[in-house]
Amino acid sequence: MAPELHPEIAHLAFLLGTWKGKGRGEYPTIEGFEYFEESTYGHVGKPFLAYSQRTKGVDGLPLHAEVGYLRPAGSNAVELVLAHPFGVTEIQAGSVEGQSLRLETISIGLTATAKDIRSLTRSMDVVGDEMTYLIEMAAVSQPLQFHLEARLERQS
Amino acid sequence: MAPELHPEIAHLAFLLGTWKGKGRGEYPTIEGFEYFEESTYGHVGKPFLAYSQRTKGVDGLPLHAEVGYLRPAGSNAVELVLAHPFGVTEIQAGSVEGQSLRLETISIGLTATAKDIRSLTRSMDVVGDEMTYLIEMAAVSQPLQFHLEARLERQS
Repeated sequence: MAPELHPEIAHLAFLLGTWKGKGRGEYPTIEGFEYFEESTYGHVGKPFLAYSQRTKGVDGLPLHAEVGYLRPAGSNAVELVLAHPFGVTEIQAGSVEGQSLRLETISIGLTATAKDIRSLTRSMDVVGDEMTYLIEMAAVSQPLQFHLEARLERQS
Repeated sequence: MAPELHPEIAHLAFLLGTWKGKGRGEYPTIEGFEYFEESTYGHVGKPFLAYSQRTKGVDGLPLHAEVGYLRPAGSNAVELVLAHPFGVTEIQAGSVEGQSLRLETISIGLTATAKDIRSLTRSMDVVGDEMTYLIEMAAVSQPLQFHLEARLERQS
């Protein structure tokens, strides 16, 4: 039985569910690519959302993954804590307005063997059961710029 | 169909599976407590393990959770990247010897509203289908000291 939603995350309930769709990415240092994505936002009755994401290439092989938690931080402020399998952790902060989230990097943690990621921005917009997002990234000595965009649909 | 294990994580295969069991925790600033835990270590054919953990109190209510990835870093070195729902990310580094892991904090990321966690050590030992672990923590102005221990069994 699903627990009751914590009132401190009522304004983030529009994210709840499993989302599937397709995206595309580019960056100056790599070839452009397309991907299939599945993301979930869940809760356990506490004041945060658990987030997980996996993508596959058009060849069906796993591409990216990330996991973490989205936390309300008073009023319309939100915080996102993330771990990436290529050896990176992210602290992001931002705000929610209606069904839109805007987040940017506050700090990045890198393991000794990690990719050199410097900062990211995330913009997410939900209309009904459709989510679109756009991610900019500064990494490997490149300035902050477009990296990923996708359109996902909430699964019933 | 499960993908083939990536050869770079063959020496970490002893962690794979879903683990359930019981633990206990203490810290100078809180009451001692017991908990039930379920942890999973999975893989998708790439050179890392995906890790997730959830605990519940003896009252059945959710207590802690953490998610992240364990990466080989050459020879017997390993790296752990983690996100915690209370607003903390962790980068840990350490080594694997046989079926034992020893990890310590390299860096911590904190959101503006996070608990003041400074560093942790993790010791994990697997014998057959039994895992025991011990976690020390330095937090809220307290020095590094015992915080958690648990005994888990791998589920078939």
